[in-house]
Amino acid sequence: MFNNRTKIKALLASAETGQEVIVMGWVRTFRNNQFIALNDGSTNHNLQVVIALGLVNDDTLKRLTTGTSIKVAGTVVPSLGKGQSVEVQATTLEILGDSDADKYPLQPKKHSLEFLREKAHLRFRTNTFGAIFRVRHALAFAVHQFFNSRGFVYLHTPIITASDAEGAGEMFRVTTLPMDGSAPKNDDGSINYGEDFFGKSTNLTVSGQLEGELGAMAFSDIYTFGPTFRAENSNTARHLAEFWMIEPEVAFNDLEDNMDLAEDFIQYLIKYVMDNNLEDLEFLDQRLAEEEKQKPQAERQEFGLLEKLRFVTDNKFERITYTEAIQILLDSPHYKKKKFKYDVSWGIDMQSEHERYLVEKHFKKPVIVTNYPAAIKAFYMRLNDGCEAGKQTVAAMDILAPGIGEIVGGSQREERLEKLEARMADMHIPAEEMSWYLDTRRFGSVPHAGFGLGFERMVLFVTGMTNIRDVIPFARTPKNCEF
Amino acid sequence: MFNNRTKIKALLASAETGQEVIVMGWVRTFRNNQFIALNDGSTNHNLQVVIALGLVNDDTLKRLTTGTSIKVAGTVVPSLGKGQSVEVQATTLEILGDSDADKYPLQPKKHSLEFLREKAHLRFRTNTFGAIFRVRHALAFAVHQFFNSRGFVYLHTPIITASDAEGAGEMFRVTTLPMDGSAPKNDDGSINYGEDFFGKSTNLTVSGQLEGELGAMAFSDIYTFGPTFRAENSNTARHLAEFWMIEPEVAFNDLEDNMDLAEDFIQYLIKYVMDNNLEDLEFLDQRLAEEEKQKPQAERQEFGLLEKLRFVTDNKFERITYTEAIQILLDSPHYKKKKFKYDVSWGIDMQSEHERYLVEKHFKKPVIVTNYPAAIKAFYMRLNDGCEAGKQTVAAMDILAPGIGEIVGGSQREERLEKLEARMADMHIPAEEMSWYLDTRRFGSVPHAGFGLGFERMVLFVTGMTNIRDVIPFARTPKNCEF
Repeated sequence: MFNNRTKIKALLASAETGQEVIVMGWVRTFRNNQFIALNDGSTNHNLQVVIALGLVNDDTLKRLTTGTSIKVAGTVVPSLGKGQSVEVQATTLEILGDSDADKYPLQPKKHSLEFLREKAHLRFRTNTFGAIFRVRHALAFAVHQFFNSRGFVYLHTPIITASDAEGAGEMFRVTTLPMDGSAPKNDDGSINYGEDFFGKSTNLTVSGQLEGELGAMAFSDIYTFGPTFRAENSNTARHLAEFWMIEPEVAFNDLEDNMDLAEDFIQYLIKYVMDNNLEDLEFLDQRLAEEEKQKPQAERQEFGLLEKLRFVTDNKFERITYTEAIQILLDSPHYKKKKFKYDVSWGIDMQSEHERYLVEKHFKKPVIVTNYPAAIKAFYMRLNDGCEAGKQTVAAMDILAPGIGEIVGGSQREERLEKLEARMADMHIPAEEMSWYLDTRRFGSVPHAGFGLGFERMVLFVTGMTNIRDVIPFARTPKNCEF
Repeated sequence: MFNNRTKIKALLASAETGQEVIVMGWVRTFRNNQFIALNDGSTNHNLQVVIALGLVNDDTLKRLTTGTSIKVAGTVVPSLGKGQSVEVQATTLEILGDSDADKYPLQPKKHSLEFLREKAHLRFRTNTFGAIFRVRHALAFAVHQFFNSRGFVYLHTPIITASDAEGAGEMFRVTTLPMDGSAPKNDDGSINYGEDFFGKSTNLTVSGQLEGELGAMAFSDIYTFGPTFRAENSNTARHLAEFWMIEPEVAFNDLEDNMDLAEDFIQYLIKYVMDNNLEDLEFLDQRLAEEEKQKPQAERQEFGLLEKLRFVTDNKFERITYTEAIQILLDSPHYKKKKFKYDVSWGIDMQSEHERYLVEKHFKKPVIVTNYPAAIKAFYMRLNDGCEAGKQTVAAMDILAPGIGEIVGGSQREERLEKLEARMADMHIPAEEMSWYLDTRRFGSVPHAGFGLGFERMVLFVTGMTNIRDVIPFARTPKNCEF
């Protein structure tokens, strides 16, 4: 029975001296044969455990190396050391598990993020990744709290799907058929997926939106929060093959409501973490500041991490139309000096350099861009009445964040059956396979809107990390599926 | 801008008369050309909207059929009808979307669950499925609230995995290689998965436990809540190919602590739903009672739904060893009368009929069975010191629930490197591929324990439904992957 242990976070927070406690955790450092910095993952702050001379024998002292797990019983006493108000004077110490100092990969020194990516099974034990994954937890909890408090229903949309109509990107096949060519075939030589597990060709989902809409047409307000997949061969610091996405979908919301919801949501998430994980954010703020110091002045970010987060919670997001965004780009000194790699004109799918210019140089805050050209957006987005720049637009919205780029993509959905069917026909989307989706427009259709927030991009934004592989426990990327 | 609507649940709860409101939703019924029962999914209780003679024209009246979506502005007034204290006297009514009464599949009558499974995209709009999926939401939120309040870190363990060591069942392959035999091959004719997306053979996860243990060795307390998969050709009311699982993993916990955690957790979930979704549970309680009435007396359940849930929250779970369980079965009149289909002896993997006998006939409450034979359990379970019935056992625990059978499976984990390696060798599990897992036993190993709760089985238990396809939005089963 171990459940009489006190967690280090609670112990340091209460700071009540004189109490007898049992603490367990992993040795971070041990100095002067006397002071153990003990960590149990509940906080980055280590508990100082003091061992009186003679409490344990020499053999045990030698085994107290970084990574060793121990159980300590002792008394909480005021601490004379800096950075902590209390410490534990050990009365007994038991080694639970050794950690051979010659073999343990995590030494009490700074390791590179690249090295730690290779050791993802151990990196949780470092200060940086301890803070990141506690923040990730807090963000996930805040997601549920936000929507629950507003009466949304959490809908688990399917992961395996036979639908490939969303067209959001390359998909992974899910199958139990043999791969060697012996899979059953149709008369025309194609694979007979009727013999596959689900009786049809199936993939991993790229989005829960279409199924989410089905829920919204009954519960009014739903959200999804689950894994989504892209089989894109993108080996960048911004892409994962497997990532988590949050997709609210709301009946009776128009584009305006959708923007309000997304902005409230993002601000709520950031405030929640600042209220509940300030220690972790302070650590990450300092980590980023040190990283920035290594860079040439010109490349440094304008804001520190906490400064940036406060700025986002304290200011309304800028809202502009796509047409206005293009005009800003065309009018920019950057454009006139031909500093953009990709050209700018009405109709382009803005590149990352364009989005970053708008957010980081022009507005210096999150920007919501609305009313994109219909030609570059998905079939389910609502066609706007009237035209901009003489062209058809849709009621889409993307939220662009400093340092990240697109963090939210959403739209009001096309609720008018005839317009939706016409658009699907234009885009060669087979209506017969999507009959269930069209049923929502046949029976009690309502205006509705929703968006997707890439969870890892949000974690990047809040932690100040720059590589998306560092904010998910075990990254899946091309040629990489370890652990 | 629609965000000035009042949700029906809030309106009925406040019951404040005299206020002007805007409500939107779907018509459930319309009678006497005067009374609309309006539902927006926030509650099963419909709002009565009263239309004065002449407010809308005859054409509009005819369009007010089941499933039609409307927007109503009006005044909240006391209701004379039964079952509600207030209703809305409409001042304006706008039809948002029609619902052709001849084509709409959901008529204002009772549909079979089988029929509604075929119409899973619309069944959310019925009372039964409205209640089920609000309860499912509440349970999911309660999961996060329970663990968050205890300082656990929510860990998103990977969905796509190259590890197949858990051996929990058949797996789905994830691939981007062609299926027709043209996939690249090795010299020996086998498929060269080095050319597949991840550079190796990959599958959908059957459990996040092993990765969860990595997290627990740093954060002490973690949990997962994500989709898991089994490619088993089981077409039963209890099996899904895709389902959600919750897996806490706790450093410093032994089997006893693990049982305490699981029992607290299950009781917390049930209490949460009883506190927050009593209306939905009352509806489901009544639904079940009506269903039971159709059965012969002998087959009826002993408890009503709410009665059963209260019984579980108010009573400690029974805790017995596997050896005791076998003895109870051997001593039972049922066994002596040869009523079990499968034989009973020490060493068997208990069948559903055995588990149900223990839970439903013998103890009449949830039962935790511990210390199973090592031979029928997974390699990572901790070997018990000493033997029972002269045989090796492991520190496993299964929780069996009335009407459901196994709802939780867990164990204390083998933290001793040598014993774990020996067990893996015995079971032909390749240690070199699992080096990352063994590292947790090499560096600061600690006693730890965890369990898995099948989320859909929990939803079945709490809603009183009997087919698992009815408690997940879109079921994935053999030959079935619709929507």
